[in-house]
Amino acid sequence: MSSERLIYLPLGGAGEIGMNAYVYGYGPQDKERLILVDLGVTFPDMDTTPGVDLIMPDMTWLKERVDRLEGIFITHGHEDHIGAIAHMYSSLSVPIYARPFTANLARRKMEEAGHDPANVVTVEAWPEVTRLGPFTVGVAPMSHSIPESGALVIDSPAGRVVHTGDFKLDPNPLVGEPFDPEMWAQIAAPGIQALVCDSTNVFSTHPGRSESELPEPITELFANAKGMVAATTFASNVARVKTLAKAGEKAGRSIVLLGRAMRRMIEAAVETGVLSDFPKTISPEDASDVPRENLMLITTGSQGERRAATAQLARGKYRGLELKEGDLFLFSSKTIPGNEKGVIHIINQFSEKGVDVVDDSSGLYHVSGHANGPDLEALHDLLKPKMVVPMHGEHRHLRQHARLAEAKGIASAVVVNGMMMDLTGDAPKVTGCVDTGRTYLDGTVKYGALDGIVRDRIRMALNGHVTVTVILDEEDEPLGEPWCDIKGLAETGSSNAALVEVMEEDLNQFLMRAGAKTLRNEEKLEQELRRIARQSAQSEIGKKPEVTVVVSRMR
Amino acid sequence: MSSERLIYLPLGGAGEIGMNAYVYGYGPQDKERLILVDLGVTFPDMDTTPGVDLIMPDMTWLKERVDRLEGIFITHGHEDHIGAIAHMYSSLSVPIYARPFTANLARRKMEEAGHDPANVVTVEAWPEVTRLGPFTVGVAPMSHSIPESGALVIDSPAGRVVHTGDFKLDPNPLVGEPFDPEMWAQIAAPGIQALVCDSTNVFSTHPGRSESELPEPITELFANAKGMVAATTFASNVARVKTLAKAGEKAGRSIVLLGRAMRRMIEAAVETGVLSDFPKTISPEDASDVPRENLMLITTGSQGERRAATAQLARGKYRGLELKEGDLFLFSSKTIPGNEKGVIHIINQFSEKGVDVVDDSSGLYHVSGHANGPDLEALHDLLKPKMVVPMHGEHRHLRQHARLAEAKGIASAVVVNGMMMDLTGDAPKVTGCVDTGRTYLDGTVKYGALDGIVRDRIRMALNGHVTVTVILDEEDEPLGEPWCDIKGLAETGSSNAALVEVMEEDLNQFLMRAGAKTLRNEEKLEQELRRIARQSAQSEIGKKPEVTVVVSRMR
Repeated sequence: MSSERLIYLPLGGAGEIGMNAYVYGYGPQDKERLILVDLGVTFPDMDTTPGVDLIMPDMTWLKERVDRLEGIFITHGHEDHIGAIAHMYSSLSVPIYARPFTANLARRKMEEAGHDPANVVTVEAWPEVTRLGPFTVGVAPMSHSIPESGALVIDSPAGRVVHTGDFKLDPNPLVGEPFDPEMWAQIAAPGIQALVCDSTNVFSTHPGRSESELPEPITELFANAKGMVAATTFASNVARVKTLAKAGEKAGRSIVLLGRAMRRMIEAAVETGVLSDFPKTISPEDASDVPRENLMLITTGSQGERRAATAQLARGKYRGLELKEGDLFLFSSKTIPGNEKGVIHIINQFSEKGVDVVDDSSGLYHVSGHANGPDLEALHDLLKPKMVVPMHGEHRHLRQHARLAEAKGIASAVVVNGMMMDLTGDAPKVTGCVDTGRTYLDGTVKYGALDGIVRDRIRMALNGHVTVTVILDEEDEPLGEPWCDIKGLAETGSSNAALVEVMEEDLNQFLMRAGAKTLRNEEKLEQELRRIARQSAQSEIGKKPEVTVVVSRMR
Repeated sequence: MSSERLIYLPLGGAGEIGMNAYVYGYGPQDKERLILVDLGVTFPDMDTTPGVDLIMPDMTWLKERVDRLEGIFITHGHEDHIGAIAHMYSSLSVPIYARPFTANLARRKMEEAGHDPANVVTVEAWPEVTRLGPFTVGVAPMSHSIPESGALVIDSPAGRVVHTGDFKLDPNPLVGEPFDPEMWAQIAAPGIQALVCDSTNVFSTHPGRSESELPEPITELFANAKGMVAATTFASNVARVKTLAKAGEKAGRSIVLLGRAMRRMIEAAVETGVLSDFPKTISPEDASDVPRENLMLITTGSQGERRAATAQLARGKYRGLELKEGDLFLFSSKTIPGNEKGVIHIINQFSEKGVDVVDDSSGLYHVSGHANGPDLEALHDLLKPKMVVPMHGEHRHLRQHARLAEAKGIASAVVVNGMMMDLTGDAPKVTGCVDTGRTYLDGTVKYGALDGIVRDRIRMALNGHVTVTVILDEEDEPLGEPWCDIKGLAETGSSNAALVEVMEEDLNQFLMRAGAKTLRNEEKLEQELRRIARQSAQSEIGKKPEVTVVVSRMR
């Protein structure tokens, strides 16, 4: 037994907020039986990943060891925990375990991607457990901003690990189970070897606030509204959507759900029995018969996503509905860093329409789904783990969380993606280092972040692009003059002649002077043509563009 | 006289925060004599303006009326107020008026661009005035986050207009003049026709805080620091830089200024007598002889700019200096919306080095340079203008500011770029509409935002690029096979063959079938080749790339 060990290896989510994927293993070194916890995505942006559709963790390490993989557990239905399962399933074909609501969402994803939804196994909450190789895994209810979030209680011969998933200590989350200190005290009773713990809000120094604080101010806000009312939040925050709908209903308004994700999420919540007592909704078409002061829209796109319902309403009509002077729009949400400009743009568009926008700056209309600093300490105190391994955070979050734990005398370590840790002893111990990275889904293709494809796109965006075409005859002599085409570049520069003409002239000069040796050397010729085109552009317009050189030879 | 009028026309800065440019005119309609207040820039981003160096207001309207332009007044030295003067000077060659410190900065810009710095005229503060055509213009000191900010007192036969520039009501800004209610009461005594007023912080509901609140907590923070200390703020916030340096000095540290803007700004402030008693600084080279616990770096790049000193320190060494475990880095600044990801990236890089980062979230280490909502109301009350015209704000800010004024019974209007207002009567009145826009500086070339150049770059970034080359012989028959080259696209797609080969094959199939009519029709042929290349890419990799088609004809 002494040669067996318990390992923890984050492949995503440690050192970033997004694309969670955590491996646990138990057994002799390099023969550990493995389970994967979560398999999420992160979202691209124009700065670093233009044109990319989704970003997923690079699962190469696990794919190469799929014969040792017992199963995948999904803690909850947020995209950064569940979003990659269908995209990765063909190379990680093991059962996927989740609680009913999360399993419902997982099955929809599997079906859409053409995988058998029966690969998703519904598990019941703790104290029910699933045995997988050396592991016994239970899913213990945690309060979060989506129903049925679960922390994993992972037992092995090396002891009990609690993997929190995302959580907050909410005694009354309105939908889903409250945080239950008694259950957790019981779970902790045999002793916790390691607490692997959400770090998102570690820098918030006040205790977190309950979802139950929101219905009163939101109801009051809507009660005083005169025209049409609309509100946005994450569709997956089913409790919030219910609060918004109930507040609308109390104000005598018919509820319209706008955006596919909003309708699907509420559908899944009702189907699985998570959500009851949701006000009756009407379709956008039927809304046209209802006076606008009796309407309440609940929309997708709280992060300013250009194609979502909120952005479309800000631009103009959406499914026949339009906001006007004197209407009210509520952002019952926090803007995720990076999305500020998009959200502000929408607020200004609403302002131009005369719509009054209310956001979360007052603190009245939104609460976070994650445990704050003091809440994390409370959980440390409740579970009294031998060690705390911070996860679900950027480096700064993990570091701060490790400090909190260490300040209490609990062993801790900053563990980022690719660090394989041995959790068997008294403190987390580095036992290896694994190559990790990001896999991009781009159209229908997946490739690695370091493949250079996105780098080329960014270069074209920053520098513009020139195509240079040269034709050489059977003797490798230039046939006609070189030809240039530009994209994303100014047409005229310092000499007031067309940029392409200046480049063509410079390239032609070079070709006239070039010797047979250069003209016959494919690589050298391309390199020189590229250099000259860039030089011409630099002197004409002060930019060095990306260049595609096409040399056609008649021989 | 009754046919003469006072007009106000924002060409930049109204409906946005950035690139300020406001025209005032007085005289008979279409014969008004004009002055321009401020000529600033705004900064590009990857989302909307990749590769662009600077964004300036489109000054076409004013250029066409430059014979009526009497002069340009610059309220203060921030880039969004002064940044475009040298870039635009060749087509707006009139004297530029500013107070000494601002004039010093303006002359540096003029010199660098090869313009005569003597075109910048230094003016003294109110009650000194400059007569320009029908206008008498005084520059009245205002407190702001840069020395010598000035509000303009613009007198004409239509009465007195106060154009605030950027300001806050700071009784003790440490460097530069305090806000002086008595002076302003005197200025207001004859009656104010219109107050054209900064709106940036209108949504902040508490009174603004004074710069003088910062030295104590900053001094305390540095006094307790153990290793090297570094801090960043806007270089132009000379008072803050002084506070940081003084706090460092008190803690027994030698001061190193890092970043060109930082050194230049302090130089200009000392040169013009604005700044005195600044601690002695040492060069980065001399710093190597000083123990690290006796060093304090003050760096550029508080907004996460990739090439600035802060970002370089976060990545590694900068000019021989390096931050390490246990060092302290202070962001004495607020992150401007859109810059969050860059700043957070730097904080995480510092975290990886073990550097403790302190930011403004505690409220102790930064105050804003703009008047908050209650401060704006206080200025309304003090000046008692006939009308308030909100400026320097996004639409939402202007609208909220107009509401504040109207709630007090003061006439107001939301005026955005291009709206020409008649300020002669009892309320702002729309009297015309002017085409406005943005001019991009890109390398050494200027062009319009709507010229399509940047649009093409964004498309290449999102969709990738394909070059298609086809050669036709003297009879317009294909000579050899088509040739494709890709940039920013996956090399292999669904059929597992190289994408370029699939495209070349599809294009070849088309050329074999194409009739002479198609092959001879330049436009049609290109269009078809583009369509087929996009179709191949769509079916192979699920993307429709940008395509450059080069058809070479041998005839």
